[in-house]
Amino acid sequence: MPDFSIGVDLGGTNLRIAAVSREGELLEKIALDTKLALGPGHVIGEMCDAIQRLTKKYKVTGNFLGAGIGVPGLVDVAAGIMRKAVNLPGFENYPARAEIERRLRASGVLENNTHVVLENDARLAAFGEQWIGAARGVPNMAIFTLGTGIGGGIVLNGKIWHGMNSMAGEFGHVTIEPDGVLCACGNRGCSEKYASATAIMRMAREAMDSGEAPSLAQAASSGAESGVKAIYNLALQGDEEAIRIFHTFGRYLGILLADIVNVLNLDMYVIGGGVASAWDAFAPTMFEELRKRSIVYAATAPDDPLKSASLGKQESSAAKTESSNERKTIITLALLGSDAGLYGAARAALGGG
Amino acid sequence: MPDFSIGVDLGGTNLRIAAVSREGELLEKIALDTKLALGPGHVIGEMCDAIQRLTKKYKVTGNFLGAGIGVPGLVDVAAGIMRKAVNLPGFENYPARAEIERRLRASGVLENNTHVVLENDARLAAFGEQWIGAARGVPNMAIFTLGTGIGGGIVLNGKIWHGMNSMAGEFGHVTIEPDGVLCACGNRGCSEKYASATAIMRMAREAMDSGEAPSLAQAASSGAESGVKAIYNLALQGDEEAIRIFHTFGRYLGILLADIVNVLNLDMYVIGGGVASAWDAFAPTMFEELRKRSIVYAATAPDDPLKSASLGKQESSAAKTESSNERKTIITLALLGSDAGLYGAARAALGGG
Repeated sequence: MPDFSIGVDLGGTNLRIAAVSREGELLEKIALDTKLALGPGHVIGEMCDAIQRLTKKYKVTGNFLGAGIGVPGLVDVAAGIMRKAVNLPGFENYPARAEIERRLRASGVLENNTHVVLENDARLAAFGEQWIGAARGVPNMAIFTLGTGIGGGIVLNGKIWHGMNSMAGEFGHVTIEPDGVLCACGNRGCSEKYASATAIMRMAREAMDSGEAPSLAQAASSGAESGVKAIYNLALQGDEEAIRIFHTFGRYLGILLADIVNVLNLDMYVIGGGVASAWDAFAPTMFEELRKRSIVYAATAPDDPLKSASLGKQESSAAKTESSNERKTIITLALLGSDAGLYGAARAALGGG
Repeated sequence: MPDFSIGVDLGGTNLRIAAVSREGELLEKIALDTKLALGPGHVIGEMCDAIQRLTKKYKVTGNFLGAGIGVPGLVDVAAGIMRKAVNLPGFENYPARAEIERRLRASGVLENNTHVVLENDARLAAFGEQWIGAARGVPNMAIFTLGTGIGGGIVLNGKIWHGMNSMAGEFGHVTIEPDGVLCACGNRGCSEKYASATAIMRMAREAMDSGEAPSLAQAASSGAESGVKAIYNLALQGDEEAIRIFHTFGRYLGILLADIVNVLNLDMYVIGGGVASAWDAFAPTMFEELRKRSIVYAATAPDDPLKSASLGKQESSAAKTESSNERKTIITLALLGSDAGLYGAARAALGGG
């Protein structure tokens, strides 16, 4: 049995803990509910119990190398503290890493040479996809996780790019409509108001309210996750209004991507999160807009972006043998689904993130 | 006398060649006209003659460490070739670096262990400001050169960030008005259509055409450089329409900055180029918009951004002693003026760019 680390994904609803080998093999995963009502101390306690169970089991045959904890919101990585945690009430400015380390040391799980890393979950998803997912072996990449909002993570030269205050990668708050919809952050026209699950539900409600889309009535009254799925299914069945919504979504995502591609000129951009599964419905207009709006993409686009997206990794590896001028920009779907952050957390525990 | 390198700034109008010490001291500068009509071979010949004169003189007392050549447009750094050079007709796909190296080797200037680096001029301006200018010692920074268009350069961990195809830093083509003014790149609403000298002249002409701004008549019919100065002087004298133009300019520049700050969370952003000298007229609305639109900036803004801008370097160094969460985002004026690229070219010749 191999050396391993622990990856944790602490969300507002689910708490997942996994043992992952140094080579990126998932050894075992524990899924719990996040009992927020019982307070951060209780949640951290359950997390540490699970970490202890897993490490006890896998330490028999391999070395425990550390633990990475992924959390939503704004994380001060150096201090190991969540600064803004909308989805984890009670955790704001709670000394999460110190508390986890204290408990794991007390129970003998953590020894002197092993550590706990606290990190933003979108950045860990990027790191996970870069480790063993869609961007495996690709040194420079970014992820866009399309869910309730838009999460972002950037990996440069194989390391997470944190920025000065651990705040880099806020793709969801890039302005794409300067006089557009008001965002909770105070800005108008943030990309996550136009290219997230929430945005799709808003567009569906607006279409229904205008009386143009009776077919959307049921979908528009659902929760975001099932609603997006229902609208996607309608689009697959040829419903014009549903198709139009995903086209609009794709155009806006294309604007966001164009901005990031023009600024960073990375090797690969990975699209993840729940809405990514509607790829077929939004990818064509996304690529169309991206090509129109990004001079960098227009100069580096593969002949068939949709095909290259499905080839992903292979395409990119092939590109490495070409001169830098001929290497292609790949936009592709995430591969690891909701486990990307778990893998990324386990990888971050190994250091170098 | 010290060891030195050569920095070259090859523009569409001016060709400047400088000897710069390893410590960043300008030893001597030669300024020539770029005689484009005589073809790239002739221009490269004059450049190499000047390099030879300078190296001959300073080799007597110090080692020659290499030459960096800054050029506008799209540069394939690995291949040493300009791929797109709108302002240097005849240079597109011309093997500039190979030709310079050939001539310098033939004349004995270049020896086996010295090299020539060809690089984009905006990136070199960033590198120059990071070496001995406004961002001296600041590891992570970007420059926005506001001229006819908007040039961009990013330095991460003290090195130029090129991106996969040497195309990173295209800040001028970030979309800030999705249905806005058509750009030569094919996109609508590129930032350089709203926050460049050209944009100021367009706004002046539009105001004049609408009959609202007779005071702008003379300025609006000038060339961009003198026109911007004239409109800035009108603004200083209290001309409402001129003030309004710079306010609009500042707001758009603020949107662009907000996007980059949200994505990269760098230590410092340096504003250079000809229009930067109108700082007083646009900086207040720029900061206002930036704070409104960037959650990262809002969380990391200094108490008095205008004062911090003028303190620049000191502020940033002081910040390093604080925890990462408390370090402030500094937006400041460039210090090296039109020499930034020359210094950056000389620095790039030392390697590590």
